[in-house]
Amino acid sequence: MRQTVPGEISKYGEGFVKGLAIDAVIFGFHNNQLKILIIEHGDANLFALPGGYIYEKEDLNDAAKRILASKTGLDGIFLDQFHIFGNYDRNNPETIKVIMQGQGIPPDPDHWILGRFFSVGFYALVDFTKAIPRTDALSDSCTWYDINDLPPLILDHKQIADKALEVLRENLDKKIGFNLLPETFTMATLKNLYETILGVPLLRSNFQRKILSLDILERAEDPVKYAHKAPFLYKFRRT
Amino acid sequence: MRQTVPGEISKYGEGFVKGLAIDAVIFGFHNNQLKILIIEHGDANLFALPGGYIYEKEDLNDAAKRILASKTGLDGIFLDQFHIFGNYDRNNPETIKVIMQGQGIPPDPDHWILGRFFSVGFYALVDFTKAIPRTDALSDSCTWYDINDLPPLILDHKQIADKALEVLRENLDKKIGFNLLPETFTMATLKNLYETILGVPLLRSNFQRKILSLDILERAEDPVKYAHKAPFLYKFRRT
Repeated sequence: MRQTVPGEISKYGEGFVKGLAIDAVIFGFHNNQLKILIIEHGDANLFALPGGYIYEKEDLNDAAKRILASKTGLDGIFLDQFHIFGNYDRNNPETIKVIMQGQGIPPDPDHWILGRFFSVGFYALVDFTKAIPRTDALSDSCTWYDINDLPPLILDHKQIADKALEVLRENLDKKIGFNLLPETFTMATLKNLYETILGVPLLRSNFQRKILSLDILERAEDPVKYAHKAPFLYKFRRT
Repeated sequence: MRQTVPGEISKYGEGFVKGLAIDAVIFGFHNNQLKILIIEHGDANLFALPGGYIYEKEDLNDAAKRILASKTGLDGIFLDQFHIFGNYDRNNPETIKVIMQGQGIPPDPDHWILGRFFSVGFYALVDFTKAIPRTDALSDSCTWYDINDLPPLILDHKQIADKALEVLRENLDKKIGFNLLPETFTMATLKNLYETILGVPLLRSNFQRKILSLDILERAEDPVKYAHKAPFLYKFRRT
């Protein structure tokens, strides 16, 4: 039985808001690859999205930042809630029991941790070469998985991940990728980011016309530095 | 003291999920006017967004539909969650006490209904000439207010309404207005809807170019019916 951490699930949820959890879909992008951070409860051989609970006096969004930082070592990155999952049948106390038993901390059968849970989905987009996934006391691994090759996930976590991807794609135009690119980048680099996240090839001329019409980019300064025929460099407009 | 209704707040929240509520921002549009449905707790002279609780075995989205139907008499209209409000300091037990005392049902001081609450914001957009606001057992009035002339609202309800308006504006292009317009409509009618919801005048040629590029409209059939120089009629594309 591994060491427990104060305030984690191993403490039977003491000090936390009951019945409401956070599940985080942390997308990692690098070199044409889009991945999701998945934790494994090794003792139970179960895969899940990283998540956690909210302290009784903690703001919801602060809890999400804390959980993200604890899993990735990253602070101050884009993070937003995208949906609350609240179907009654999304709960499965047997799965939670198996996870907790695997950790040597079987819960009381009538503990609220086995009852109905709502989950607030948060998503983030990071450069996975900069995020160092951390294994906590309750999971054996915390690993990047390609979005097209996810292991089976517990509960409705696959549905949560799918919804996050849908929202990520819808919101790509809102500078959501700004922390993935260097300060200045070419149109080809940006198109590459879009193609990987959208999962489809894009036509160069259409892409450039559309992205420029959004008014989120500006040309990088000091164009005299550029060699003849070198591609223009762009950066996100500060607003 | 007015009659209580089984399952309402007057029953001290029995049978409901604890600590989680729904607040609904129901936008009403008609003839260049954009309004929000507001209830008044007359005994306490407090104004609030309509809302309610989730039954213990009820899906979250079903609860929202039920609450919307109970306040407006409308079924099957567009309704979506847009944000969960979870700051610790959003709660104010004194306000809840005043409302309940006004109804002659003062709560026990340690009842969970006075504790921390998260609220899931849902929004809808309806034709306010078709929605018949209903007063329930716990409020004296349920009335349309112009978005620019709202009464002071309890708790963080103004912030919830503001966030809903922001999301409504961001999502206008997703056919969100389809249940507000007749099956076919002119570009001028659609532009008018946009202008009212966005709160700004739009240039006709820019608007037409942008809206057509979204690929959500198609020309209504049978153009030979149109008189010479009559404006084209459009309808939303079925997808």
